[in-house]
Amino acid sequence: MTLTWQAAPTKTIDVNGTSFSYREVGEPGGVPVVFLHHFTAVLDDWDPRVIDGLAARHHVIAFDNRGVGSSGSTVPGDIEQMGADARAFIKALGYDRVDLLGFSLGGAVAQMVALADPGLVRRMVLAGTGPRGGGGIWKMPFIVGSAYAKAFLTRQDPRNFLFFPRTAEGKKAAGEYFGRLAERTRDRDRPISAQARNAQLRAITAGGMHKPDDLSVITSPVFVANGDKDLMVSSDHSADLAARLPNSRLRIYPDSGHGGIFQYHREFVPEVLEFLAG
Amino acid sequence: MTLTWQAAPTKTIDVNGTSFSYREVGEPGGVPVVFLHHFTAVLDDWDPRVIDGLAARHHVIAFDNRGVGSSGSTVPGDIEQMGADARAFIKALGYDRVDLLGFSLGGAVAQMVALADPGLVRRMVLAGTGPRGGGGIWKMPFIVGSAYAKAFLTRQDPRNFLFFPRTAEGKKAAGEYFGRLAERTRDRDRPISAQARNAQLRAITAGGMHKPDDLSVITSPVFVANGDKDLMVSSDHSADLAARLPNSRLRIYPDSGHGGIFQYHREFVPEVLEFLAG
Repeated sequence: MTLTWQAAPTKTIDVNGTSFSYREVGEPGGVPVVFLHHFTAVLDDWDPRVIDGLAARHHVIAFDNRGVGSSGSTVPGDIEQMGADARAFIKALGYDRVDLLGFSLGGAVAQMVALADPGLVRRMVLAGTGPRGGGGIWKMPFIVGSAYAKAFLTRQDPRNFLFFPRTAEGKKAAGEYFGRLAERTRDRDRPISAQARNAQLRAITAGGMHKPDDLSVITSPVFVANGDKDLMVSSDHSADLAARLPNSRLRIYPDSGHGGIFQYHREFVPEVLEFLAG
Repeated sequence: MTLTWQAAPTKTIDVNGTSFSYREVGEPGGVPVVFLHHFTAVLDDWDPRVIDGLAARHHVIAFDNRGVGSSGSTVPGDIEQMGADARAFIKALGYDRVDLLGFSLGGAVAQMVALADPGLVRRMVLAGTGPRGGGGIWKMPFIVGSAYAKAFLTRQDPRNFLFFPRTAEGKKAAGEYFGRLAERTRDRDRPISAQARNAQLRAITAGGMHKPDDLSVITSPVFVANGDKDLMVSSDHSADLAARLPNSRLRIYPDSGHGGIFQYHREFVPEVLEFLAG
């Protein structure tokens, strides 16, 4: 398999009666890296540079979780169930050991996967995310709502306001990011549904108000990354997450926000490759 | 005491070391009606027609809870503590039996007061509010954030978008409401602080995700009211609240939103007077 993300076909697999959509790139064999995505994201919202960058040395699989994009059924309202769905998808593909890369909501789901089945996860990258019950996440729906209204009124993608700082450099990074997301023109995914978005927002809120998990049981190596000015998940929460994981490293990118790993993909990709190589 | 709300002086009372601001109108004697206010509201955000309307036959007391407006200290992040603060204020004034009128967040706080000290509450009016753990309240910060952004960008009060329908009649009702709030020009309250707003938003979210309370223990008569198209607290949640209170009546005003009781103050005031008369 030497396809790029832009050309990777969308496949489906039946997971206990529900069709899950996914795409894969990179050479199969070895432990695959499974990507877990953010609030409102479908397959086409993955940055091709990050996917292809890791696929240079790894088998990379990205999927729409239950109810997201072109996957069937509906999105559950809590991240534990999202984690159970992700595990069922991984098992349905026949894997019993994977690396995970979770961004934002996907990073919360990755934690649920690792807590429920520690043996399944070899290494984990958690970007733009925090621990359950970390405090402050209750603010996120307010911030998201504000960004959606600004986006609607200015006819822009809300991620302009949520993922990148409103500096000249941040706006440039946002423009480049959206350019990369637009590279794929054929076989694009279905956009997120209102049901999915609402259920995800509920799950994020419930996770924020949940009692904190004991993350000390996750002994796999974890790479925690974020921008230094994340509006959605405070960069402090990423630091808190790293502190609570016994085998973690923390990377905070300067002058960047929630989408710091996309703004700094030239640094992030080699750093993750080095991390996954152990 | 024959003052109107417009002329009522702002008083303070020490409640266990914290200064609480309040105003009172109507003839003292008998059971006072204590008003509990909404997210971001200070004393000047009470509709004078509702206050003065009830003060025609009752002693009415409105106050800034801990950390709100000109009251001292900071706002706690959960409604149970807000309820404890409200009870402490009522006790500090020397009352051991009151009627409560709670609007929105204030309606949630009123429920906490009644649950913690059923004997304190003779009758209760719960407007634009729902039960704890009622579901859907997790959406509210998103809706509030959206309204704040629209308000900021259009230089309007967010309550234009949150309290009234965006119909010709709703916009007219909004304009009249803001006109009434502006009647008092002297000795106005301090605006809400960022700390207060954030803590209230946290408390609202936590309340929404909390397990439901057993409201069957509140045997006092309760008048539940809302508009029929409330964006903030679904009108269904007011109906659910009424259904779970053993001694309640439900009033839903047509073509109105969260601020239905203000849009329909000409109906609401006599209906509450009749309810309080028993």
